[in-house]
Amino acid sequence: METRDMLWSGWGDPGLAAPLPEPVAGLLRDMLGVRPAERPPADLDGVGVPACRLDDGDLTALAKVVGDSNVRADAETRVRHTRGKSTPDLLRIRAGEAADAPDAVVLPGSHDEVLAVLRACAERRIAVVPFGGGTSVVGGLAPSADGAADGAGTGGGGFVALDLRRMDAVVSVDETARTAVLQPGLRAPDAEARLGERGYTLGHFPQSFEWASIGGFAAARSSGQASAGYGRFDDMVVALTVATPEGTLDLGRAPKSAAGPDLRQLVLGSEGAFGVITSVTVRIHPVPEAREYEGWRFASFGEGAAALRRLAQDGPLPAVLRLSDETETVVGLADPAAIGTPGGAGASAGCLAVLGFEGTARGVAGRRTEAAEALRAAGGEPLGTGPGEKWAHGRFNAPYLRDSLLDAGAFAETLETAAFWPDVPRLYDAVRSALIGALSGAGTPPLLMCHISHVYPSGASLYFTVVSAQGADPVAHWDAAKRAANDAIIDAGGTISHHHGVGTDHRDWYAREIGPLGAAVLRAVKERVDPAGIMNPGVLVPPAAEE
Amino acid sequence: METRDMLWSGWGDPGLAAPLPEPVAGLLRDMLGVRPAERPPADLDGVGVPACRLDDGDLTALAKVVGDSNVRADAETRVRHTRGKSTPDLLRIRAGEAADAPDAVVLPGSHDEVLAVLRACAERRIAVVPFGGGTSVVGGLAPSADGAADGAGTGGGGFVALDLRRMDAVVSVDETARTAVLQPGLRAPDAEARLGERGYTLGHFPQSFEWASIGGFAAARSSGQASAGYGRFDDMVVALTVATPEGTLDLGRAPKSAAGPDLRQLVLGSEGAFGVITSVTVRIHPVPEAREYEGWRFASFGEGAAALRRLAQDGPLPAVLRLSDETETVVGLADPAAIGTPGGAGASAGCLAVLGFEGTARGVAGRRTEAAEALRAAGGEPLGTGPGEKWAHGRFNAPYLRDSLLDAGAFAETLETAAFWPDVPRLYDAVRSALIGALSGAGTPPLLMCHISHVYPSGASLYFTVVSAQGADPVAHWDAAKRAANDAIIDAGGTISHHHGVGTDHRDWYAREIGPLGAAVLRAVKERVDPAGIMNPGVLVPPAAEE
Repeated sequence: METRDMLWSGWGDPGLAAPLPEPVAGLLRDMLGVRPAERPPADLDGVGVPACRLDDGDLTALAKVVGDSNVRADAETRVRHTRGKSTPDLLRIRAGEAADAPDAVVLPGSHDEVLAVLRACAERRIAVVPFGGGTSVVGGLAPSADGAADGAGTGGGGFVALDLRRMDAVVSVDETARTAVLQPGLRAPDAEARLGERGYTLGHFPQSFEWASIGGFAAARSSGQASAGYGRFDDMVVALTVATPEGTLDLGRAPKSAAGPDLRQLVLGSEGAFGVITSVTVRIHPVPEAREYEGWRFASFGEGAAALRRLAQDGPLPAVLRLSDETETVVGLADPAAIGTPGGAGASAGCLAVLGFEGTARGVAGRRTEAAEALRAAGGEPLGTGPGEKWAHGRFNAPYLRDSLLDAGAFAETLETAAFWPDVPRLYDAVRSALIGALSGAGTPPLLMCHISHVYPSGASLYFTVVSAQGADPVAHWDAAKRAANDAIIDAGGTISHHHGVGTDHRDWYAREIGPLGAAVLRAVKERVDPAGIMNPGVLVPPAAEE
Repeated sequence: METRDMLWSGWGDPGLAAPLPEPVAGLLRDMLGVRPAERPPADLDGVGVPACRLDDGDLTALAKVVGDSNVRADAETRVRHTRGKSTPDLLRIRAGEAADAPDAVVLPGSHDEVLAVLRACAERRIAVVPFGGGTSVVGGLAPSADGAADGAGTGGGGFVALDLRRMDAVVSVDETARTAVLQPGLRAPDAEARLGERGYTLGHFPQSFEWASIGGFAAARSSGQASAGYGRFDDMVVALTVATPEGTLDLGRAPKSAAGPDLRQLVLGSEGAFGVITSVTVRIHPVPEAREYEGWRFASFGEGAAALRRLAQDGPLPAVLRLSDETETVVGLADPAAIGTPGGAGASAGCLAVLGFEGTARGVAGRRTEAAEALRAAGGEPLGTGPGEKWAHGRFNAPYLRDSLLDAGAFAETLETAAFWPDVPRLYDAVRSALIGALSGAGTPPLLMCHISHVYPSGASLYFTVVSAQGADPVAHWDAAKRAANDAIIDAGGTISHHHGVGTDHRDWYAREIGPLGAAVLRAVKERVDPAGIMNPGVLVPPAAEE
């Protein structure tokens, strides 16, 4: 495979893995009760994959479509396509457990090959999991039998991961429409590099940027760190092509239309449950002439949130706009060694906001000045560009840090939600209470941090990070905490995910969010385009029994 | 009924009807071959409504839900709910033909009453046409039997118009989220007045503004004249409640979410085919402190379009941004008496762009200055505020003018589309050719005008106005021209409607736009929420036979 592979047992480039400095490890031990794991992680060779459930006839039928070399059933390839990158996913694979491994990995090279693979799989009742960057943190790559119709999928027929890495072209760039046609397997950094050669950018920089794919962004309704300036990925998409077991959907003849429901918005967020996105036409922007990042301090999270709301509603809106709560501010501002010393240097840190302005030099200067007026009026204290640059420099680092924490015996995970502004304080309190309650039982309280990661005129998202001791059974321990947090989110009026998606992990709460009739509508759509129920079974679409 | 009624045979306030000045009528006669109609329009009393197909049991069942006084089957009420306001609709009703009259009009007062009406109608196989302002111009209020499942609807069971005027409350205004919860029967001017009392505006001003309703805006995916500044109506909606024959959909817990497809966008544009929108939560904005409208002249439509594109892509974006082609510029700039003298004063008129800036005084001034730089660089010549004020003053007048033209024996109609920027010139030429070809056969060529009415970074809409002689059978004559234009739109890559909707008139071309699988998906959704096929049968959803 030409595309580089991510660390199978963690995040990112295997060469970048590094242990935590010993002083940090010591503080984790003292403050959070973190103890070194009893067993080192398994080696790749030591991961046990189940026997392949596909027979020779299945593999031959698939190879007939994509060619022999593009059907892989070796153990390493299967392990590398097992689940995604949530912390429970990593803990399981590090323990050598790969029960959810695909039975084979298929690499199609074109829309027509995808269609043919889906037809062959529907006929043979083989489930299909579309696989882009493999960065799902919500169980989006681990199908389950209860989502499959008619005995398909993991009910015994096995499943294939449909790895789209061969479909990685920038098909065309239209400078008049300021759009580009991208294939789904294109990785985000490659998209940026190739658009950048022509002077353009997508402006889409989620934390998964280094590894995620264009098709994944669309399928998972991704939202990048600069969403205030460039929009979410679902705002960027103007046209889509989707291969389903029942044929092709070609959507989007104009930026906006009054011709019926916007079916593009039915595909965005469909997480492979309806079909495979094989082409995405996105808006592009000239590479900004200027980029300026800066920090502001607010006395409290509430005061800072009000200031962000002011910018979201009345402008000027920076491209990046985020606000850490008190704990995250202390942890982020301080030297890593200061984690857990809130009575020390961090006590008067307040809450840090990061603003990033991008555009023409004149536009950036004008908006910065105007925003500064508004933020000062809202109680903000300017901290200069230092905190902004620091954030921008480390913007994709958190998942690497998680690997180091896991290596050190700590547990680290994130979750996120969004709501309308009046519900945000209640949502913040409810999720914190749920997590602290559930995680404190078995040891020291967790370190719990939060930031507002995306803002809109009518509301905002909240992104929580939890660090704790792993304990004896961290997967089960987190499962209970995550369930409590999900309940709290739904009860407090939030959405079960602002940018991570539904997958299998959020499906039961998603069913509550959209209600029984909403779930029934999704099932009706799925049954029409995927009557055999082979597409990512168990992901997204609530089964009828749950209504 | 408390809500004022529109002129049954035309547009707007009956008191505002006025004949064309005789010089204009003379020019229409000389240039376009317009002749006075042979028969004057029918009186309201002279309109023939078909016998009511509902029996006493039906009417009693409905009255049991909404009360006796809220079920009306008198001739006047039925005529006033017959079809919408397209020119063929007006020509038919003026000729005394009301074959499409609803069998009764039902006025529910709450979401629960709507649900109960739908259940009763599903049981009795009575079709239901949701009725807001009654301003559809695409046959959205005239159900047809071919869209009904299972013998429901106009296949013999009759249909009711569900007039939502009793549900006209501003339920709540949330100043923190900058949102308002509105009932569907609220008329736009009432919404503006009541929000205005609190210092807010929706910013939604389509040409139908004076009569259209909030529910209609949502159901028809409306786009207002200030869409560049405030967004389309589908951009404004953050939450929706929908009553369907199978229950309630409650959608929208956050401004944006990654939890699955955006089901709000499946309801927006659903035109009553899935259910009745009973609550709409929309974004609101502070009433702008300043409003400045101005005109710019460009040498050609192409040059002007490039200038608009420049603003749409790189800003600053005014709230209103439109560009008339050469013919519309001449007709609009000149005295009405100058229509048809393009060799005269209008010859060097070029193309008129209207820009409207709204916001804080400082923001308006800044954006005007910056826009002026960009427009000058793009070849524009500033015309000052005169043409802008003139446009703003007459922005809702065109439908009144149409009534006067019809009275004078002329035919006048509009149609619209949208596409990505590179397709716009071809689309413009194709629609013009189709209309001129189809309408020139039976007399003098039509007067054909066009403007870009809405712009986006990746494309724009085109809005065409046709004025011609009525001829012997104007409905049939226009039908052929409209079909030719629709074919041209689809063949040239445009969408069949940017803001008028699909209704019954555009349905066959909409089927081509979304393809057979897209149509099948819509049918699957409809069959799930409306298994009896009672909801606005024939509207929007292409029947299976058309795949």
